[in-house]
Amino acid sequence: MTSRSVGVCYYPEHWPEGVWPEDVRRMAEAGLRKVRIGEFVWSRCEPAPGRYDWGWLDRAIGVLADAGLEVVLGTPTATPPKWLVDRMPDMVALDGAGRPRRFGSRRHYCFSHEGYRAECRRIVEAMAGRYGRDPRITAWQTDNEYGCHDTAVSYSPAARHAFQEWCARRYRSPDALNRAWGNVFWSMEVRDFDEVELPNLTVTEPNPAHVLAFRRFSSDQVASFNREQTEVLRKRTDADLIHNYMGRETGFDHWDVGADLDVASWDSYPIGFLSDRLDLPAEHKRLYLRQGDPDMQAFHHDLYRSVGSAKDGRSPSDGRWWIMEQQPGPVNWAPHNPAPLPGMARLWAHEAFAHGAESVLYFRWRQAPFAQEQQHAGLLRPDSVAAPGLAEAAEVAGEVADEAPGTAPGQVALVFDYPSAWAWETQPQGADFEYLHLCLTFYRAARKLGLDLDVIPAGTADLSPWPLVLIPGLATVPDALRGAIAAHGARVLAGPRANAKTPEMAIPLPLPPDLPGLDCTVALVESLPPSADMPLAGGGALTRWREALEGGADVVEALRDGRPAAMAARTEGGGRLTYLGGWPDDAAALRIVRREAEAAGLAVRDLPEGVRTRRTPTHRVWLNYAAEARDTPAGRLPPAGVIREPITGSARRASDPEDDA
Amino acid sequence: MTSRSVGVCYYPEHWPEGVWPEDVRRMAEAGLRKVRIGEFVWSRCEPAPGRYDWGWLDRAIGVLADAGLEVVLGTPTATPPKWLVDRMPDMVALDGAGRPRRFGSRRHYCFSHEGYRAECRRIVEAMAGRYGRDPRITAWQTDNEYGCHDTAVSYSPAARHAFQEWCARRYRSPDALNRAWGNVFWSMEVRDFDEVELPNLTVTEPNPAHVLAFRRFSSDQVASFNREQTEVLRKRTDADLIHNYMGRETGFDHWDVGADLDVASWDSYPIGFLSDRLDLPAEHKRLYLRQGDPDMQAFHHDLYRSVGSAKDGRSPSDGRWWIMEQQPGPVNWAPHNPAPLPGMARLWAHEAFAHGAESVLYFRWRQAPFAQEQQHAGLLRPDSVAAPGLAEAAEVAGEVADEAPGTAPGQVALVFDYPSAWAWETQPQGADFEYLHLCLTFYRAARKLGLDLDVIPAGTADLSPWPLVLIPGLATVPDALRGAIAAHGARVLAGPRANAKTPEMAIPLPLPPDLPGLDCTVALVESLPPSADMPLAGGGALTRWREALEGGADVVEALRDGRPAAMAARTEGGGRLTYLGGWPDDAAALRIVRREAEAAGLAVRDLPEGVRTRRTPTHRVWLNYAAEARDTPAGRLPPAGVIREPITGSARRASDPEDDA
Amino acid sequence: MTSRSVGVCYYPEHWPEGVWPEDVRRMAEAGLRKVRIGEFVWSRCEPAPGRYDWGWLDRAIGVLADAGLEVVLGTPTATPPKWLVDRMPDMVALDGAGRPRRFGSRRHYCFSHEGYRAECRRIVEAMAGRYGRDPRITAWQTDNEYGCHDTAVSYSPAARHAFQEWCARRYRSPDALNRAWGNVFWSMEVRDFDEVELPNLTVTEPNPAHVLAFRRFSSDQVASFNREQTEVLRKRTDADLIHNYMGRETGFDHWDVGADLDVASWDSYPIGFLSDRLDLPAEHKRLYLRQGDPDMQAFHHDLYRSVGSAKDGRSPSDGRWWIMEQQPGPVNWAPHNPAPLPGMARLWAHEAFAHGAESVLYFRWRQAPFAQEQQHAGLLRPDSVAAPGLAEAAEVAGEVADEAPGTAPGQVALVFDYPSAWAWETQPQGADFEYLHLCLTFYRAARKLGLDLDVIPAGTADLSPWPLVLIPGLATVPDALRGAIAAHGARVLAGPRANAKTPEMAIPLPLPPDLPGLDCTVALVESLPPSADMPLAGGGALTRWREALEGGADVVEALRDGRPAAMAARTEGGGRLTYLGGWPDDAAALRIVRREAEAAGLAVRDLPEGVRTRRTPTHRVWLNYAAEARDTPAGRLPPAGVIREPITGSARRASDPEDDA
Ligand SMILES: [Zn+2]
Ligand SMILES: [Zn+2]
Ligand SMILES: [Zn+2]
Repeated sequence: MTSRSVGVCYYPEHWPEGVWPEDVRRMAEAGLRKVRIGEFVWSRCEPAPGRYDWGWLDRAIGVLADAGLEVVLGTPTATPPKWLVDRMPDMVALDGAGRPRRFGSRRHYCFSHEGYRAECRRIVEAMAGRYGRDPRITAWQTDNEYGCHDTAVSYSPAARHAFQEWCARRYRSPDALNRAWGNVFWSMEVRDFDEVELPNLTVTEPNPAHVLAFRRFSSDQVASFNREQTEVLRKRTDADLIHNYMGRETGFDHWDVGADLDVASWDSYPIGFLSDRLDLPAEHKRLYLRQGDPDMQAFHHDLYRSVGSAKDGRSPSDGRWWIMEQQPGPVNWAPHNPAPLPGMARLWAHEAFAHGAESVLYFRWRQAPFAQEQQHAGLLRPDSVAAPGLAEAAEVAGEVADEAPGTAPGQVALVFDYPSAWAWETQPQGADFEYLHLCLTFYRAARKLGLDLDVIPAGTADLSPWPLVLIPGLATVPDALRGAIAAHGARVLAGPRANAKTPEMAIPLPLPPDLPGLDCTVALVESLPPSADMPLAGGGALTRWREALEGGADVVEALRDGRPAAMAARTEGGGRLTYLGGWPDDAAALRIVRREAEAAGLAVRDLPEGVRTRRTPTHRVWLNYAAEARDTPAGRLPPAGVIREPITGSARRASDPEDDA
Repeated sequence: MTSRSVGVCYYPEHWPEGVWPEDVRRMAEAGLRKVRIGEFVWSRCEPAPGRYDWGWLDRAIGVLADAGLEVVLGTPTATPPKWLVDRMPDMVALDGAGRPRRFGSRRHYCFSHEGYRAECRRIVEAMAGRYGRDPRITAWQTDNEYGCHDTAVSYSPAARHAFQEWCARRYRSPDALNRAWGNVFWSMEVRDFDEVELPNLTVTEPNPAHVLAFRRFSSDQVASFNREQTEVLRKRTDADLIHNYMGRETGFDHWDVGADLDVASWDSYPIGFLSDRLDLPAEHKRLYLRQGDPDMQAFHHDLYRSVGSAKDGRSPSDGRWWIMEQQPGPVNWAPHNPAPLPGMARLWAHEAFAHGAESVLYFRWRQAPFAQEQQHAGLLRPDSVAAPGLAEAAEVAGEVADEAPGTAPGQVALVFDYPSAWAWETQPQGADFEYLHLCLTFYRAARKLGLDLDVIPAGTADLSPWPLVLIPGLATVPDALRGAIAAHGARVLAGPRANAKTPEMAIPLPLPPDLPGLDCTVALVESLPPSADMPLAGGGALTRWREALEGGADVVEALRDGRPAAMAARTEGGGRLTYLGGWPDDAAALRIVRREAEAAGLAVRDLPEGVRTRRTPTHRVWLNYAAEARDTPAGRLPPAGVIREPITGSARRASDPEDDA
Repeated sequence: MTSRSVGVCYYPEHWPEGVWPEDVRRMAEAGLRKVRIGEFVWSRCEPAPGRYDWGWLDRAIGVLADAGLEVVLGTPTATPPKWLVDRMPDMVALDGAGRPRRFGSRRHYCFSHEGYRAECRRIVEAMAGRYGRDPRITAWQTDNEYGCHDTAVSYSPAARHAFQEWCARRYRSPDALNRAWGNVFWSMEVRDFDEVELPNLTVTEPNPAHVLAFRRFSSDQVASFNREQTEVLRKRTDADLIHNYMGRETGFDHWDVGADLDVASWDSYPIGFLSDRLDLPAEHKRLYLRQGDPDMQAFHHDLYRSVGSAKDGRSPSDGRWWIMEQQPGPVNWAPHNPAPLPGMARLWAHEAFAHGAESVLYFRWRQAPFAQEQQHAGLLRPDSVAAPGLAEAAEVAGEVADEAPGTAPGQVALVFDYPSAWAWETQPQGADFEYLHLCLTFYRAARKLGLDLDVIPAGTADLSPWPLVLIPGLATVPDALRGAIAAHGARVLAGPRANAKTPEMAIPLPLPPDLPGLDCTVALVESLPPSADMPLAGGGALTRWREALEGGADVVEALRDGRPAAMAARTEGGGRLTYLGGWPDDAAALRIVRREAEAAGLAVRDLPEGVRTRRTPTHRVWLNYAAEARDTPAGRLPPAGVIREPITGSARRASDPEDDA
């Protein structure tokens, strides 16, 4: 593997050819190494059915490669051209209200449409046939941002047909499906798989088992759609295959897609995401208006590093991943779009590298003065003058140029699980019970304590690398994980709602959490409106969700009125398993995770508001998300400041918690 | 009539037959007497077209009856099976946006579809043929929760056709319809009844007369749908016929449906309703989070007791009614679903009995671990362990076992009228003018004063039983009621918006309120945003709605600036009629109702916050909805406490207002 | 031209003929002069296809004319009758979700439907043939409230076809269209005009250039629809042709429609508009609950006076305009509908006359007791008793009877531009960036300083009449205006977002604002959430929108941190051009406009809260929108008070700023 690199997304088709050489010269001058192109070019590569035009793309690749830049080439399947849609008008998705999601922007296809899948194989084959062995192309991106704009699900006839076949494969008989879903409940039984409908437009909520099955199916369709492309590509290229995932996208299981790819990547828009995808207090949003939430990016870095380890059986600490699109300035799509604080475009990249990113590509080179994203900043302004992001990108490029990618193994593992996201979306039981938000509550607590995390899938069978394992809201605990918990020699903190559902979205017997060695039963659950937080005796409160716990295990957290809130027991492996029967507010989460971490022998810190830290094999990186300067053990950090402190024996300060390898 | 009884809803089809005997043994052990079954079993009783399977149901009834339990059997028409819907796909309702409300949950039918009506007659005939004379079946429930999930209206072609026929019957000629609706207004005139559209998808609001007619029609369709079942049943059984109404459901006129049934019943979910169906201040919702609103249940008890008197011309005090489904723990369908305060499952039942309920059935026996309601508590947990509700149900069962049902006649009558609900929904004129909320404002005031109420229909022709009659927001005052007001010898408090519309949703001449003997005219109305309450000279304020009153009647309430707010006059019968020209806030409502009650010779009380009281022929029942203990004349009430104080001469305390018979 | 007149809207078809004479007598008695009739009568004039019935209308006109009233006759094309819609069911518009906007209210037609256009020409021809030369008809109104109820756009097949033809005319080749819109962006390129879709139901936002083109097209369709009527009418009548525009309606370019009409008019509902169309603070809405916003009406008066100048090349100060519908009491359509403060019905009319109105017609004569608007007040109550508005209307009629219409030329010009409204609606970039709201911010500031404004179109080529010109948010600065700015000898205040887009909705090069002689570039823009206002060093703040300015021009406003917020330079004409890089809050707007006005040599005032003033050639009119009395230089104004102070040398007070002609 080569060293860390910085890059950019480029759209040669948007500019006159005469502009390319100067663009490319400036990219190289800024120290950029990777350039992604091509992911939306179908109408230019095949302007009419079967009439290919590769000349301009040949020339663009040539200009880039001549300047020493490595090309990442996208397959253009996220934007089928008009002539293709007109040939098969039923290829578009239908939304939940039954309306077509039509041509005119992007992602206007249904993952289940066989005709469109054939067209995708054809165009990818044509592209791969031409460029697969071209050494100038060092990686391929499949499609673009699967699931974005709520496109993982479709209620089209094609989806219905594919879902019926999926059900036939999964359940084998209509009776088995009826039993699995509990269709007897409201006479919802089917006599044949072709009676299975999609779970939309029902009078009141559809059977949650039906919905969960449909979500599983929809996820599988994304994975198989991607696989059809990787199968075509693998035969024609040895370059890395990548997809660029989105932030806060839970429409499909990313590990399933990742299993067919060499590298994971994601598109990181910290300020946009803070504005439109995080359910956090207004005051928090005000504080981080121009910086983004301090933990949102890190969480996704750790998640996609794990996704990047899916293909080759690597450790989640060691997965291969990139940022394919990094916000460089104001974006165009959030409700409000403030400009980043000076320095943030650099900070965000350094945070990514600290979490192990191989490459960080800024989106995009020059701001397009036309079409949907014309208000999205680039590294250049529309008039080709450097935008603020360019200097920051160049600065990072210089700083990381000679460094090997990598990050330190996590001290804490957080189990993240897409089916759990679907389960709680299907039946939240409380209007604000949101799985990713719950996971971020625990993630944030550990980060505020200065701990390094790995995000791991629910299928993990060995927890021994992590002194502390967090398992919030895991709907179903698979057998392998169950065994790993029992065998674990350190700390496990699970709940709320752990193991609360079978894989078919039913309440299991024995009742939850049914965790190994823990005599604890959830006798009753309740969801709470915002005004009804329940204070914990030890500080903080349960919010949104509370479970009544029974059993003989040790009570380690109690409500102020004495009722148990968490119970714990020794594991077979000699560790300790704690089950928390509620959603902790930030104060409770910090207190409880601190206690667990300390019990696990981890050194914790009290980081100032907005400061975060992450270790790599060679450095401890300090990041300041605050808009004011902050003091850290490594020195004073200006707003958006980054200190990369080498990890050496002599560099350790006495006052500082020891960095445990 | 037998004594008060407690029961439960049971779904034998959800459980292996081997479980039934133990379930039934425990029901009997808990003192339960009635068990409702069967209302969703169509796919099990007729798994394929024309192929009936009654064996399992025979056995289930047998097991129940062998334990001495009385069976209430439901007709399964709320959940037509898939094969039936596939045979007549146009049987589903269309929503206002024209989208089908499809198979996959329940109530997926249009009340106007003739083909589906025929299927319903057929299945009811088959069921009644088998079980109609079976003495183990002591009552029949038709369908389930008419109108629930907004199903009283449908915009399907079947509905349109039926509406056109309904219009032809009502108006006789297109010209008469045009005149009745004022269709000249925007050239909306029709030349033939087949030109009459449904009032949806119009560019701006449709003609309110058109909407009101459509609401009347929709209500009539519910009643005639139900009547088709009762006609089939009456021929084949002598058991009581019942329907289980919902809370806060105004989609159809319940007295019309009740006229064909022996007993009214309703499904009472106090905590769920507080959360999702009451427009009350957040602080009030916080105080009663785990108890439900202190007046919501009582109002519906009094309402459905009146509905239960419709068939046999009984007094509204004396109607036959049950709770068919009583919340026993957290439900699954509100935005947030907290657990009841310990004791509430008992308190709710006692309140129902105090209001005259014959039976209270808890919903449901065992929490289903599958399908839509898996998070809805039962008397048993999914693992068959007793949930908190079971002990409370058993306690109530013991307490009421030997008591005859009944309640004391109301001291105060509140006129409630479904067409008024439709009228103000159609044209609220102020965004927050909601009829049931207005009625609850007056109901609550009287309840807080310790008064017993009857809810009576607008067609009431004799008001003499009630010293005080409240008539809020009655859109049209029928002639019979008009005569009764004139003849009344005690107090009547009417308004706002009384008599403000003709039955065809026009403004009548002379202008409202045009009440007998009252020289008072509403010269102008205005609706007010929340910040614009208008203080009354006597205390409290008008809120949401204010009318300018003119005329020679006595001014008995005035705004602070002196303009009249209420006017009054002597009735022919020697009573006094007061018209209130606005929506009183809680303080004003309490003050005004107190004055009227005292003037009517009623003894009022100052009940502590959360305490309510109701008399039966034998007891005064005290209920504490507060989460803290409260002192009452009958003693100290713990949270959720109930005191049933025998009514005897000696039991009367000197300090207490006299209980007038 | 005759003198100012007051009138009323009347619906003879709503009342028995026997009522007409008394109605008309009372109109005349009240001093009313103009009566509008006929705009919704299609079903009465043509009750069946081709069967006309004019008799009743002949008689109605006769009764009105006999009393000396002038008749304004409407064409009935806003309400096609049922039989017509049934003949061409595809004539209705489709909404953005693809749903038909059906018969049952009004405006149920698509402007692009050729069949309906032919029907409109036919009915207008029939009406004009009968009444065109009738001297009793002194004016004609075309259709009614174009665009109201969001009807300017339609997504029907007819609209799609017409849009494709419009595109073919505008762009000439598909390639030109692709280039103009930047369709290469997401492979959105078309190969033929029949591939052009309407920009609805896309997966994510459609191309903003596509949307803007569609909005231009939709506006053109309104204008050509109207023109088809005026072409028919011009051949058959010499009476004035008028349309009644709505308030806050930006669905089409009113100057384009105005070019075919003799007089502009609008329908003024101050209280309704305050409630449902103004994004202003709750406290402001509370203060003006019964009066309406003090500037909303004046802005529209000035706007439509300008629109009324479009046909004959008059000055915007001198356009011909009316109020066709004036709110006389509570309306029926806002979320809340309070009654006006006594005196407001008079004040509103005086304000209109002060701004140059020729006529003010109240809507409507008698409150209709039926159909959609039955809760809309009239000058009479439904029972024919005078409502409060009648006496006020009569008072105004008396006050203005002998006066010539006219207003003083504006001291300040505000450039208003419909395509800018479309551009910022298409891509606001900040959720609350609303063009008309931005314009009102500047308009209000000038009004609060006692200044008289003209509203002028962006095509204005000579700014010399106005010492101060305000140009907020003008998306594209046309060449003529650009020249006029350069040549201007006084003050111009432009921005934010001036010249930020090309006419094809792209970012222009050189970057904005690119104003003549001003070395200032917008380097970056950002939109801000409510909590993130940026204080200005001189007082007040930027809110919602902030631009980073670069260049050598003078910095005349700075943020508190020193960054430039406004820059200025001398114009060629010797004036001074200032560019403001943000949305000023009210305090900043008042301060900045005051400075500019003073620098322009205009005398400003400090008007008390709620007081406004406007000059005519003969008077200075003082208006009190406050609910309390206010002192003015002309004396004490009661709530809703009006003082009409003659402008004479002797009347000038020394303490008062001089009225500059
Ligand atoms: Zn992207
Ligand atoms: Zn129910
Ligand atoms: Zn109007």
